[in-house]
Amino acid sequence: MLQNPPAEAGMREDEVDTPALIVDLDALEENMDRMAAFCAENKVGLRAHAKTHKSPVVAHWQMARGAVGQCVQKVGEAEVLAWGGVPDILVSNEVVTPRKIARLAALSSIAKVSLCADDAAVVDMVESIAEQAGCRLTVLVEINVGAGRCGVEPGDEAVALARRIAASRHLVFGGLQAYHGRAQHLRRLEEREVAIAAVAAVTRMTVDALDRAGLACAIVGGGGTGTFPLEAASGAFNEIQAGSYIFMDADYGRNEPAPSFRQSLFVLTTVMSAARSGLAVVDCGHKGIAIDSGLPLVHGRPGISYAGPSDEHGMLILEASASPLKIGEPVRLVPGHCDPTVDRYDWYVGVRNGRVETVWPVAARGMMS
Amino acid sequence: MLQNPPAEAGMREDEVDTPALIVDLDALEENMDRMAAFCAENKVGLRAHAKTHKSPVVAHWQMARGAVGQCVQKVGEAEVLAWGGVPDILVSNEVVTPRKIARLAALSSIAKVSLCADDAAVVDMVESIAEQAGCRLTVLVEINVGAGRCGVEPGDEAVALARRIAASRHLVFGGLQAYHGRAQHLRRLEEREVAIAAVAAVTRMTVDALDRAGLACAIVGGGGTGTFPLEAASGAFNEIQAGSYIFMDADYGRNEPAPSFRQSLFVLTTVMSAARSGLAVVDCGHKGIAIDSGLPLVHGRPGISYAGPSDEHGMLILEASASPLKIGEPVRLVPGHCDPTVDRYDWYVGVRNGRVETVWPVAARGMMS
Repeated sequence: MLQNPPAEAGMREDEVDTPALIVDLDALEENMDRMAAFCAENKVGLRAHAKTHKSPVVAHWQMARGAVGQCVQKVGEAEVLAWGGVPDILVSNEVVTPRKIARLAALSSIAKVSLCADDAAVVDMVESIAEQAGCRLTVLVEINVGAGRCGVEPGDEAVALARRIAASRHLVFGGLQAYHGRAQHLRRLEEREVAIAAVAAVTRMTVDALDRAGLACAIVGGGGTGTFPLEAASGAFNEIQAGSYIFMDADYGRNEPAPSFRQSLFVLTTVMSAARSGLAVVDCGHKGIAIDSGLPLVHGRPGISYAGPSDEHGMLILEASASPLKIGEPVRLVPGHCDPTVDRYDWYVGVRNGRVETVWPVAARGMMS
Repeated sequence: MLQNPPAEAGMREDEVDTPALIVDLDALEENMDRMAAFCAENKVGLRAHAKTHKSPVVAHWQMARGAVGQCVQKVGEAEVLAWGGVPDILVSNEVVTPRKIARLAALSSIAKVSLCADDAAVVDMVESIAEQAGCRLTVLVEINVGAGRCGVEPGDEAVALARRIAASRHLVFGGLQAYHGRAQHLRRLEEREVAIAAVAAVTRMTVDALDRAGLACAIVGGGGTGTFPLEAASGAFNEIQAGSYIFMDADYGRNEPAPSFRQSLFVLTTVMSAARSGLAVVDCGHKGIAIDSGLPLVHGRPGISYAGPSDEHGMLILEASASPLKIGEPVRLVPGHCDPTVDRYDWYVGVRNGRVETVWPVAARGMMS
């Protein structure tokens, strides 16, 4: 079933059906402008990560401000963006099964589509499927820059895989994917500096080794909302892949210093029971907000904290100093983690000055495969 | 966007696009049969909880085996079930805003719809909306049986609220909602017995007090997959509200003893990188599986455990004794918590004997409001 939007343009925010995903449009626009200015000043491309917003609408807003394209993690996300007219999409992730590679090949008629690899046999499979489809696919080599997740080792292993790509008739070697996810959330600036100095060093070493092998990197990409100024300053990268900067979340807010963007994303929830003193029950629990990076914060209500979610309920704990909450009252929550929270909702509710200005779909919601 | 199904009937399980929600149809049917037999033997009604399955298809399978109706937590779930022909639906939760109550009133033309209340002002609002809609709505009183979440206190408070419902011209007093969520996951049987003995005592006391006030309880409902035999044996309940029994999960598996149902629900994931020894990266992370009740278990692969999810990746740790994993290989995960995992997917993939037999939608997925 398609879900009806929880709001209509012109409504007051307190009339929105909850739980709902609220975007403060002023803050969103300011975040996009600020990142665009940073990239222009620092002469680095922004390939914004659509795994955060999952929306061709937001992608086009980013590109209108100068972003060179979009990253995605999943083939289904690439499809939704391409079908929404996004012209240049990098799957910043390995794609390893024939059906999914064939879907990317089919997309290559309507958008430039690139993907990552860290395995020679998969490169051969991509070549074979591109040949059958009669298309050319661009493949980047992902290198392990310290996260120990996907990626070949920097240096010789990366050069060997890049040579294999370049030697494949239907593939184009597209450069390096060098993203360190965990480093985004290292709390202290010095920790992030140390981590990204190492990332930049092995990335630069690999770019140089590829250069000596006659393999130029059109893209050297990495960096997220927690570290992108460091990747940009290193000179080793020509594209940064931040996604969360448009929305922010409570977890990024705990970085020291926090990234200089405004919180634009909220989950609006409603008090549904206030039967016990000092407690209120709201209509947003595990199904409505991600807790993998900590519980949400209560926005703009001093002395009230969110605790003890169950599937469809959350508990608000009121300190003695807090203003009481009434049944039916809406409360804004700041998600602990923006990406998986967005992925629970079918609609964005865009608000400005307390009124709903527009609603638009989280078009690639749940596009996991 | 509507998502394409990740599989077609007749495919082998290893051809399914992942991550995908797999249901072992033999195990599912056996679980439904076993619960139906229990309820028949113990002369208690089953009002199965659709917050778990979110599917009119599964609801009708349960009712064909004798279930008296369905529970839901959300108005959007009630709509999807009613539109799928389910005739008797209890929103086992408070509904407190005018728009949502009006949606329930509109549904009452096509299904019997009941809801819960724990507040007099909300009862008056429901009465007023039912009057405007020209319908009658059935309202149950939720009592706090120890979870300390929603619900008025048992006894006098409950009687007062029930009187108010019964005195409202467009409302029918429907009985008591007496569910203790946390008790489901108390690990030891003795702990659950103590908790449900208290639940049954306050429930019986409230039923008796209502009886003395001339208010009969058509429904006295509660009990989940972790405790329903105790509610049934207490004699205080005439309906049980188990939901997870159809699927099971790793968290219920940790109860002692575990509920006597088979694991029928899995998330199928694929190895996407195996660049490092003793590790494999799979394509299912936070967006594909709920971790609020613990990490998933790896099914049928001794010596392999799931660790360290990020948004779209999971890490598998291989002990020295484990059979190695190859890129492209599918792996079944047992979710830590079934309900919020189901709610991430648009499609069920029903399998039997290693083949996809049918796919059907998680029709109320994301219906949070």
